[in-house]
Amino acid sequence: MPRQNAIQNTGIDGLLLQPLAVIPAEGGPVLHMFRPDSPLFANFCGGPGEVYFSEVHPGHVKAWKLHTRQQQTFAVPSGLLKIVLYDQRPGSPTRGVLCELFLGRPDHYALLRIPPGIWYGFAAHGNSPALICNCADIAHDPTESRRLPADDPAIPYRWGKS
Amino acid sequence: MPRQNAIQNTGIDGLLLQPLAVIPAEGGPVLHMFRPDSPLFANFCGGPGEVYFSEVHPGHVKAWKLHTRQQQTFAVPSGLLKIVLYDQRPGSPTRGVLCELFLGRPDHYALLRIPPGIWYGFAAHGNSPALICNCADIAHDPTESRRLPADDPAIPYRWGKS
Repeated sequence: MPRQNAIQNTGIDGLLLQPLAVIPAEGGPVLHMFRPDSPLFANFCGGPGEVYFSEVHPGHVKAWKLHTRQQQTFAVPSGLLKIVLYDQRPGSPTRGVLCELFLGRPDHYALLRIPPGIWYGFAAHGNSPALICNCADIAHDPTESRRLPADDPAIPYRWGKS
Repeated sequence: MPRQNAIQNTGIDGLLLQPLAVIPAEGGPVLHMFRPDSPLFANFCGGPGEVYFSEVHPGHVKAWKLHTRQQQTFAVPSGLLKIVLYDQRPGSPTRGVLCELFLGRPDHYALLRIPPGIWYGFAAHGNSPALICNCADIAHDPTESRRLPADDPAIPYRWGKS
């Protein structure tokens, strides 16, 4: 991974990835997520956001979902997550781009900023559950999200065994 | 646990405990942490805070630590944490009170607000690591914390096997 705090290109406009620090400590490490010096921080702490965890059990796929207004910021402190994102936003300069990423220790401990309007789905990679922490810029609102089945032909990705 | 969102008494002045929701979902639950309707939310999102994780391996005790300025808000989304807190604040109405709590699923999924000036230490309970997510009101500053050895006689608590 490139140096911490530098924003990485993902291929999808507005989809930002920032590698994070894991600091070894006796009895277990400390893992950064959001800090005031993060380029992704301002848009969370200014608003009435929400912080929550989503656990993904091995062998399950949670796909597809899209938020029309909520901006999400994911870190995966435990387990390894495979996340696939698809840009279907009208007028987006990266419309039609699909992005597959891994999030988790040791090599992919990072912050992922997902703008509204991106389809995404995820699965735990390997035999352990993956834990997502999401710092969302607005609180949960069931009227602002949409879903599609994992095998929907509108998204050019086929989920196999993780 | 009492109903969600109601603040529970811990016996230590300013030490607040708020039970949280775990929402079952296919492939793994969603676990609340911080929401705008939480009585503990305002003091985090107003300032230049930090969100980070601390992992505790089974068999290890991380103790004792005290923050002179940082206010901490803990949730434990994975594993079970035993946390012991001791009030040695001059002038505190609960000076001398010791509090032992468990944080983690299924019965103790809650938010714990730790005011500055409280000694605390923790250990993973059982054979799995425990993961703490801390939403702190100010970013990490090594000059505002103090430490004591786990067996320091100034704190009336003996750590045994967890």
